[in-house]
Amino acid sequence: MRQTGSCPIHWSPSLATDLYELTMAAGYFANDRRESATFELFVRDLPVQRSWLVAAGLRQAVDYLLALRFSAEDIAHLKTLPPFEHIPARFFDFLASFRFTGELWAVPEGTLVFAGEPLIRITAPIVEAQIVETFLLATINHQTLVATKAARIVGAAAGRGVVEFGSRRGHGPEAGLLAARAAFIGGCIGTSNVEAGRLFGINVYGTAAHSWIMTFESEMEAFRAYHRVFPGSTTLLLDTYDPIEAARLATRIGPSLKGVRLDSGDLAEQAGRVRSILNEAGMTETRIMLSGDLNEYRIADLIESGVPVDLFGVGNELVNSPDAPSLSGVYKLCELESPAGTRPVFKRSAGKQTRPYAKQVWRLRGKQGEFLEDRVTRDDEPAGSPEWEPLLECVIRNGGLTGPMQDLDSAGHRASSQLDSLPERYKRLKGAAAYPVRFSSRLSPNR
Amino acid sequence: MRQTGSCPIHWSPSLATDLYELTMAAGYFANDRRESATFELFVRDLPVQRSWLVAAGLRQAVDYLLALRFSAEDIAHLKTLPPFEHIPARFFDFLASFRFTGELWAVPEGTLVFAGEPLIRITAPIVEAQIVETFLLATINHQTLVATKAARIVGAAAGRGVVEFGSRRGHGPEAGLLAARAAFIGGCIGTSNVEAGRLFGINVYGTAAHSWIMTFESEMEAFRAYHRVFPGSTTLLLDTYDPIEAARLATRIGPSLKGVRLDSGDLAEQAGRVRSILNEAGMTETRIMLSGDLNEYRIADLIESGVPVDLFGVGNELVNSPDAPSLSGVYKLCELESPAGTRPVFKRSAGKQTRPYAKQVWRLRGKQGEFLEDRVTRDDEPAGSPEWEPLLECVIRNGGLTGPMQDLDSAGHRASSQLDSLPERYKRLKGAAAYPVRFSSRLSPNR
Repeated sequence: MRQTGSCPIHWSPSLATDLYELTMAAGYFANDRRESATFELFVRDLPVQRSWLVAAGLRQAVDYLLALRFSAEDIAHLKTLPPFEHIPARFFDFLASFRFTGELWAVPEGTLVFAGEPLIRITAPIVEAQIVETFLLATINHQTLVATKAARIVGAAAGRGVVEFGSRRGHGPEAGLLAARAAFIGGCIGTSNVEAGRLFGINVYGTAAHSWIMTFESEMEAFRAYHRVFPGSTTLLLDTYDPIEAARLATRIGPSLKGVRLDSGDLAEQAGRVRSILNEAGMTETRIMLSGDLNEYRIADLIESGVPVDLFGVGNELVNSPDAPSLSGVYKLCELESPAGTRPVFKRSAGKQTRPYAKQVWRLRGKQGEFLEDRVTRDDEPAGSPEWEPLLECVIRNGGLTGPMQDLDSAGHRASSQLDSLPERYKRLKGAAAYPVRFSSRLSPNR
Repeated sequence: MRQTGSCPIHWSPSLATDLYELTMAAGYFANDRRESATFELFVRDLPVQRSWLVAAGLRQAVDYLLALRFSAEDIAHLKTLPPFEHIPARFFDFLASFRFTGELWAVPEGTLVFAGEPLIRITAPIVEAQIVETFLLATINHQTLVATKAARIVGAAAGRGVVEFGSRRGHGPEAGLLAARAAFIGGCIGTSNVEAGRLFGINVYGTAAHSWIMTFESEMEAFRAYHRVFPGSTTLLLDTYDPIEAARLATRIGPSLKGVRLDSGDLAEQAGRVRSILNEAGMTETRIMLSGDLNEYRIADLIESGVPVDLFGVGNELVNSPDAPSLSGVYKLCELESPAGTRPVFKRSAGKQTRPYAKQVWRLRGKQGEFLEDRVTRDDEPAGSPEWEPLLECVIRNGGLTGPMQDLDSAGHRASSQLDSLPERYKRLKGAAAYPVRFSSRLSPNR
């Protein structure tokens, strides 16, 4: 058994895929299948309590498509695998000069999408289109899951800032970085993860841990020691011993204290008393942050009860979305194009039906800009009238970017502006109405 | 807003941590706190339906501790963050020459652990011990979660092989690789992820997708085309159209067909009929693999009903553990050591109490090797009698490995052998008994 012994683990994106993508690629190649195939990535059924998703992960998907190469080491490794023993050398030559030469259409990150609507659409020679499946799914499923959960939590926070605190609970270190990115698209104002801040230009937030308090002889000494080092940015953690007593100690720091954090117990009751103590000491600008197993439901309850709070820190619930812990996006073949013409492709299996043909998604807004309904049509089919806005845009053509990609700030603005345009009945945390999406009759398998 | 534009994203482990670890480090440094601190990573309460955990992730934790450095770029970035504006230069000099110089004790990967038992214990100068918290938690929480879920699923499969198929549902590409590793420790025989196979020396498995079948004019043509390219390793997917009809077509391939896979519908009913069809054709060696939203409960039902099955493919349920989607391991300070002596440290907060002092975990076995009970003591406290086996071993001393690390095969064998030694009442999938763990009175906060 090999052990890698590197940190972070050094891995090859071209092999970070399911074996069957590569065997099918070899199979298409060996059978001289050269048609252009169109695959679409969509979510068949939305997770529990969700009636919309915030699309995220496109940037990493694009980076992958543009960078995808098979190194000599990759190919040498593939040749050691039993299924590849008798594969002709010309397939490995093909891999050695592999480039993604196809087309990618996608909704921009931050776009609201609904069940059955393609988030991305790939058209490429079938070998290329098949190989990329696993990586695209892993990337889009994960970030869309987290961006959606973040948007629910940010919505519940009703204007108070939400900071992503989940790195320690994420599925490994890279998952934490990507979750911070997706959470920002979903509306979080920042992350605790310094590297996510550096990579993606997100604001980073930090307070202190209980361990800091406990290493000092007294809580007051711990407070003073921290404030001395960070006079302009100290947020004191109050619940190591008695949070109310700690709030009284915090007033001795004075109005330069940036914030306090409560992390356990009855947050609503504590926050009210802490706010009064701070205000009586003239510390009206000192912010209160609440954390500790928070999610959209608990935050909605806290806001409903009128708790004085300025910021929420959310960890596990944000990065793992425990009430809906995965997104079952699928990547399905819908069309084959060859010199003989266009062939629609679809699945009839019970519960797993798909719709044929490459598609476009259109959105109709009302007079105030509010979302009315979506339509999914064939990509070459008009929506009906010019008010319908097409959502899928061409991002890669002939293997190259069509233009500069949207930056992360714009993705966040897109999500918040689209959520503002979505009527309230679709946004209830529980029992939200299903948004109307109509599918063109030309996409019907029985047509 | 920055966008990285690299695949995989290139990230710095030293900054992939919560900001407060680095501000507390600066705070300890500036306050001349140089004591040796002991932190322990443990799980306070086991997740729902779990009465044991399979420890995993140690290798990546060790790689991190041994490799941890702060590059000039890391330090330059830190200096741009507002909290670090007024931090004296000597702290950054310290970071520039940072090495983990401390000690790591840990249970080997594959060890069964219970609530409250440390999986790892760090003793190091407090600045070092604090900085590493986030990364260690992210690594151990994730892999232990997946290894535990895998062991439950493998147990339910009652001797049939379980293959990890979850990369497309993991929390990003790295999470998929690490999940494949953890699943192997938990007893899976392999993974679909080629790169996980390469990095960790795990067997890789693959079949084919529905898209393969659908691109051919007929199912039989698709079957033959695949078998022609992979005569020794073809597993045909049967449920694209009618699985029973597909099984009949598969018999035309003959006994060289390695396997068939069923991925939807009534798997028990289909598998029985498919097995009969294959057997009647003399294909008794052709294996049946079942997949499609399987977990330990559904697999137990399938086995209970006597389904003829050789292999299970499990994806989302394995890598995301939806019934218990995160592990709330914590990293808690328990002891400070200075020239003035040893100081116990613990938390009293309601529901978040911790136990003071560096600890050892001991296990007592019965005459047949079966597990009887565990004890947790102070690290310098004898367990009572020589039959008690200590579980925490010293892995790193003075910043260096004490010896070669256990390989991944051994970790898998350890897990399966320990599970064999665990009495059945603790292994029920639902309603398992709580395993007895006693804590020495010397660990009592009130003592």
